[in-house]
Amino acid sequence: MNQIKTKVGIIGAGPSGLTLALSLHKNGIESVIIENRSREYIENRVRAGLLEHNTVEVFDSLNVSDRLHQEGLVHHGCYINYNGVSQRIDFQKHTQKEVTIYGQQEVVKDLVKACLERNISIIFEAEATKITDLETSNPNIYFTQNGEENVLTCDFVGGCDGFHGLARKTLPKDSYKEYKIEYPFSWLGILAYAKPAYDELIYAYHSNGFALASLRSEKIVRLYLQVSNDDSIDNWSDEMIWDELENRLEMKLNRGEIFEKGITPMRSFMIDNMQFGRLFLAGDSAHIVPPTGAKGLNLAVADIHNLANGLVDFYQSGSEEGLNNYTKKCLARVWRVQDFSNFMTYLCHKQTEEGSFESLLQKSKFDYLTISEAYQKTIAENYVGLPFEVFG
Amino acid sequence: MNQIKTKVGIIGAGPSGLTLALSLHKNGIESVIIENRSREYIENRVRAGLLEHNTVEVFDSLNVSDRLHQEGLVHHGCYINYNGVSQRIDFQKHTQKEVTIYGQQEVVKDLVKACLERNISIIFEAEATKITDLETSNPNIYFTQNGEENVLTCDFVGGCDGFHGLARKTLPKDSYKEYKIEYPFSWLGILAYAKPAYDELIYAYHSNGFALASLRSEKIVRLYLQVSNDDSIDNWSDEMIWDELENRLEMKLNRGEIFEKGITPMRSFMIDNMQFGRLFLAGDSAHIVPPTGAKGLNLAVADIHNLANGLVDFYQSGSEEGLNNYTKKCLARVWRVQDFSNFMTYLCHKQTEEGSFESLLQKSKFDYLTISEAYQKTIAENYVGLPFEVFG
Repeated sequence: MNQIKTKVGIIGAGPSGLTLALSLHKNGIESVIIENRSREYIENRVRAGLLEHNTVEVFDSLNVSDRLHQEGLVHHGCYINYNGVSQRIDFQKHTQKEVTIYGQQEVVKDLVKACLERNISIIFEAEATKITDLETSNPNIYFTQNGEENVLTCDFVGGCDGFHGLARKTLPKDSYKEYKIEYPFSWLGILAYAKPAYDELIYAYHSNGFALASLRSEKIVRLYLQVSNDDSIDNWSDEMIWDELENRLEMKLNRGEIFEKGITPMRSFMIDNMQFGRLFLAGDSAHIVPPTGAKGLNLAVADIHNLANGLVDFYQSGSEEGLNNYTKKCLARVWRVQDFSNFMTYLCHKQTEEGSFESLLQKSKFDYLTISEAYQKTIAENYVGLPFEVFG
Repeated sequence: MNQIKTKVGIIGAGPSGLTLALSLHKNGIESVIIENRSREYIENRVRAGLLEHNTVEVFDSLNVSDRLHQEGLVHHGCYINYNGVSQRIDFQKHTQKEVTIYGQQEVVKDLVKACLERNISIIFEAEATKITDLETSNPNIYFTQNGEENVLTCDFVGGCDGFHGLARKTLPKDSYKEYKIEYPFSWLGILAYAKPAYDELIYAYHSNGFALASLRSEKIVRLYLQVSNDDSIDNWSDEMIWDELENRLEMKLNRGEIFEKGITPMRSFMIDNMQFGRLFLAGDSAHIVPPTGAKGLNLAVADIHNLANGLVDFYQSGSEEGLNNYTKKCLARVWRVQDFSNFMTYLCHKQTEEGSFESLLQKSKFDYLTISEAYQKTIAENYVGLPFEVFG
């Protein structure tokens, strides 16, 4: 059994764990990251692709955003369509802020590179198996690597290991309540080599169901179709996908090679406690939002903003206040983002037959969007990200 | 059988019918109103009590608002509470508009008085029994009065006879679709002689259920409690009502004699066609909104705005365009008001046990209200009434 020691032991080298390590490093606090996948795997895992302005500011403050600013696409608005009627949501006008299109795997590449350059240790292909001694000042993270058992002894544990990770399972069952919504529809998503035929994202309600036109770069498009939960990707040829996208988006698309496709269910999930003793959860380990609001990665970075502040306070002044209030501070934002993601999901997806009272109330929200600057602004300000400070 | 002739035959001397008659009179168009109740009855029937700025402007334009401006209470905002945390919605700041508190029976008194002064004929205690010849240029309204049968022959029929009236029943069944939501809660409402302990309306979510503090004048309060649909007024002593109001509103009230109390179910109802041949429906005959948005009377006056414009156009220029587009024009606003009333109802009422995901999303909307001027403005602009013009 090899023992390693550090100040903060972090499980998971996704955006949460990497951002935490870099934030601590900036303040002279040592950490070690344990990641169960390879570097290659995490640098190519396709996930989110939209950074709110708060997230970009965090990356700026960590000096990891050079490539993001070179290659990322700044968007000053998006479109919300209802059966072909299009309303632009002007982020710039309503918030003087913007979002940046930049794939999560690119973020991860930049963060890993910065970690290694700054001598932050990331132990790849190492599986955390047990977290113990959380109520002492020296918790232990047990992990296996190449068949060997190891232990990472630290002051604090960052549980950044995603929805299926060990961190949430380690929380005492009676220390939290679990919240879950399973939506009655899924997203069929594709990545394709093609020039986007649109300059900003398009959220489109259509009588056949929702469609989303997004992109990863000037050469790669990301497109989604609402499908039923029991649909299978085998039912969809590439041509059918393109045809239905063009139908729902009511525009001609540039068709290119589809290099990834799959169906993902839509759900909202969260727990109302994100800490126990010296373990702190962040990102997907504590909450999942439906992708309609493009918030998953951004919410993770907001958690880390609070956790890093709490840890830095502790090491600099001995104050435990930030850490003690970590859950409370995070949850205020998590609830806001859950509600916004839920709102966008219900706004844009087909839920009942057209012509029902509910579907016509849904349509009336789109009509309202076309006449109300205030309503547009509620979407804009949530979409670009409400300031960290408003959550106290 | 006595025959009377006029240009526009109006069924119902509520706010819709009376406003229609006065609007036509202003443009030199004769009308006759048939009302199945007595003058005394309709002048004392307790209904709504909040006029949006559009409604006041219509009454101003008809020169029937002197007493309204003397006795009505102008409100520049209202409060929305969540378990004791209070957020003011500032109408003035967000819309530069206001609402006026003035009982519907006072409106009716003013309108009846103006009609009679202007020699508009109102036939009281006359029951419309049949509307015929709607697809000719001379429809007939049959009615009985003192046991005698009469017929009012006219060019057009205004169906302003409320939810239970003849007008909607006269529409061909296949000419419209009916929409209905029955909410799983009711309002226990009281009127009492007491000085209001609050200067603006208070919409209060409380873990026991919704409460609304409203008023009719400086001496009469109107207060409501959310109760279950199977509750009975016999279960509530006056003292219990006051106690529970104080509990949910989290304030001390001035208690006075309760002179009216009752339980009303909450529902949304509408039909998507408001005309057939020469019959035009307005107000409650075509739609009911839950009272949470205070919109019933205001929506009726908005209908009349469109109907009067259409009729005046017809008599002045022969154009039937306004009349042909009457339903379309009204429905745009009806849907907006249905959605707003539905939104306010779901926002403010207790629907699930506290602690459920849904209840916490509901709470997060209140939290958002405290940090977002834009969200406050969406409520303010709907509450004071969106301008007639935005609906095309």
